This record gives sequence, C-alpha cells and structure tokens, in this order.
Amino acid sequence: MSRKVCQQRHGRSRQDSNSHPNDHLFSTPARAVIVQLLRGGFRPDASRWRGGIEGNPDVTISMYEASVGLFVPHLRNLSGLLDKGVAYAETRKFNPAVLLGMRLAPNMYDLAQQVGEACRHAVVAPALLAELEPVALPALEHDMAGLQARIATSIEFIESLPRAEIDAAAERNVFFRLKNGTELPFTGRALLLTFSVPQFFFHVTTAYDLLRHAGVELVKKDYLGRK
Amino acid sequence: MSRKVCQQRHGRSRQDSNSHPNDHLFSTPARAVIVQLLRGGFRPDASRWRGGIEGNPDVTISMYEASVGLFVPHLRNLSGLLDKGVAYAETRKFNPAVLLGMRLAPNMYDLAQQVGEACRHAVVAPALLAELEPVALPALEHDMAGLQARIATSIEFIESLPRAEIDAAAERNVFFRLKNGTELPFTGRALLLTFSVPQFFFHVTTAYDLLRHAGVELVKKDYLGRK
Repeated sequence: MSRKVCQQRHGRSRQDSNSHPNDHLFSTPARAVIVQLLRGGFRPDASRWRGGIEGNPDVTISMYEASVGLFVPHLRNLSGLLDKGVAYAETRKFNPAVLLGMRLAPNMYDLAQQVGEACRHAVVAPALLAELEPVALPALEHDMAGLQARIATSIEFIESLPRAEIDAAAERNVFFRLKNGTELPFTGRALLLTFSVPQFFFHVTTAYDLLRHAGVELVKKDYLGRK
Repeated sequence: MSRKVCQQRHGRSRQDSNSHPNDHLFSTPARAVIVQLLRGGFRPDASRWRGGIEGNPDVTISMYEASVGLFVPHLRNLSGLLDKGVAYAETRKFNPAVLLGMRLAPNMYDLAQQVGEACRHAVVAPALLAELEPVALPALEHDMAGLQARIATSIEFIESLPRAEIDAAAERNVFFRLKNGTELPFTGRALLLTFSVPQFFFHVTTAYDLLRHAGVELVKKDYLGRK
C-alpha cells in the first residue's frame, strides 16, 4: 500500500554512511580499525565532532534541543501573543488585564495562570536536567507587564543553563515536584517526552485559544513563530 | 544565585563514561584503539548497542521517540477525550455530533477539524521521515465513530513505519506540503521540533480545550495520559 517516494530528495545516499568527513583526523591504522568498527555497527556520536554533522544518519535530537531549544522560541511567541492581546484591548478600549482573568471553563486556569504554568514548565524541566535550582519566579501577576517580565526572566534563566549538563541528562533520574509536594520520578528523557514538553505546549496553546476566544485576531504563525 | 542540587540522585557518576558494558565484544587491540578514541572525545552511539544504555551520557532522543513515540500515546489520549465527550452528551441527552461542530472562535477549526489536523500531522511527519506515502485518510467525518476510525487508522499506520528509517532522518531534507500546495523545506529534525510536534500538540490541546469549554469534565491526566 505504501511505497517509497522522493528518493531523489535526500542529498546523501545511505551507502555513504560508512565514510566520515573527519576520517582524515585519524592515523591510517586507527582509521582501519574505525572502518571495521563502523562496518560492525559502531557509530560515532556526531555531536562530539567539531566538524559538520550533515548527512550523518545517527545524529538525533539532543536533550538541549528538546527542552531549551523548544521552550525559548515558544516563550517568545507567547510574549508576542500577549502583545497582540494588549493591542486588541487598546483598540477596543478595555483594560488588557480583563483578558488575563478569562477562562475557557470555570475550573480551568485563567490566561495569567496559563502563562504562569508555561513559564514554570519551561524553567523547571531544564533546571532539573542541568541539576541547578530553578530561578525563583515571583507570585503570579495579573498584569501584562508582570507576565512579560516573568517570560523574560524565564528565557534569561534557561538560556543561562549549561548545555553539556542538559545534553548528558537523558538517562539521569530526576524528580518533578508537583504543587502538592508529590515528587514524580522520571529519567531526563521521559521528563521531556512524557511530561514537560506536552505540559508546556498545553499551556501555550491554551493561552492562544483563550485569546482567540476573546476575539484577538491571531494566526497560526503567531503560535508557531514567524520565519 | 543558582547552585548544584540533588547530586546524590543520579545513579552513575560521570567518571564511568569511558568504560562500556559491551567492551568485551571487541578484541584486545581493537579495544585499545577504542579506549584511545574515547579519550580523544570519540563516543559510540549507544542506540546501536544491543546491550543496555543506562547511564551513558551521550544517549539522547531518537527521531522515532520524538515522533511516533509522542504521537501514538497522545492520539490514544485524544480518542479517550472524544469518548468522554460522547459520555457527557449521553448524560445530558444531546447528540454528540453537536460537540464536533463547536469552535472557540468563528474563524477557528471546529472540534472535528482539530481532530483531523492532529491525525494529519501525526501521520505526515513520520511518513516523510520514513520516506513512505502517508496513509490515505477519508474526507473528514463529523461523527464520532468516523473520527475514532480516523485516529485508529493513523495509529496503525504510524506504528507500521520502520523505526530505523525514521531514526536516520534527522539531517535528511524533507518537504511538508501545505493544503495550498506550498512545500515547506525542513531537515527531519527541524520538521519535528519547529513544526510537526508544536502543530500536533496545538490541535490535541485545542480539542481538549473545546471539550472543556463545552462542559465535559476532563482533567489534565486525560491530556497527559494516565500512568
């Protein structure tokens, strides 16, 4: 039923995968052993090479890319969503803080809390991976300037975290502490894939949905980020 | 301001990383070369080893884990959300299809379309990575049984895709075709991190938000998946 398509589209054929652009870094005997190892299924971790990594079929996704690399641009997008909410409120002549108290259901978080939760997940997960204390965020503000400051503080903090520590945390045991004190155990990888990334996108999306529901004219690119 | 915490919590110290449980698979001369390579910063890709990968600081996130591994459980969760919508409609004695036509804003997709988009992104991204044609989904249904069948077909398709092909696609060039025919170019990794994963979670979350807005009693675990 399915068939191979677009074979012409990937630049490098699979047969090339046993040679590596950095082979010349090794002596001839060492290279001979490397070739044997590669033929036996042994693969270098390309992220350790200083050279380019294009075309290496074993390059995957780093823990940093799947945490800081996702959270920072989407926190910036979230900041942009709030800016559009403020502009809408000014046009319609109402206090932008009204938006921050809106909810999609009586027992769901309001917009300010959705922003707060997005920041919390974006800060706590990378901090756990880096084994550093998360930055202390103030009590939740129900004003736009306070929320923008919270987003900026969150971005500044997670951008300051050491990439190597985060990248090394895939198999490390981490414990996410819920607000009720319960500690959920994860490996670093499972923290991101089964908890923090879905949580983060939940709260950013719900912030978008709330603003759309309130009448703010947003488009999908405001959520995805403009290229 | 930040300080190291929880040092006692990760099971294996960083100093162990130059030895590997599978070292005995290699002859003594080969092993001597491997040790030299490791000391020089050369690291095996642990996903290629048949043995356990616990404790290896270079293990990251595979393309498969970041696509099929995310989409399948969250499609199942989405199916569960719809089931709760049906149960709610039966309790309140209205046609469940009413829920499928609800929108958070007049120019947003309705619930059925949100489910359709979640399935589309979950199917197309892994198919592009595997270089296989995506399964053909029927025209969008506005009935619960049709949407449940669409979710089931999507799960069955993406679970059938070859893991090795997807794992090898991080640096491959792929083209996501929009409904208007425009083709967006990505590397496989960028497709997931900057487009398909955020899109997928957007539509699943918005489906959740719509159901909550309609009065269906859902909790966060219905979105995250029950453990």
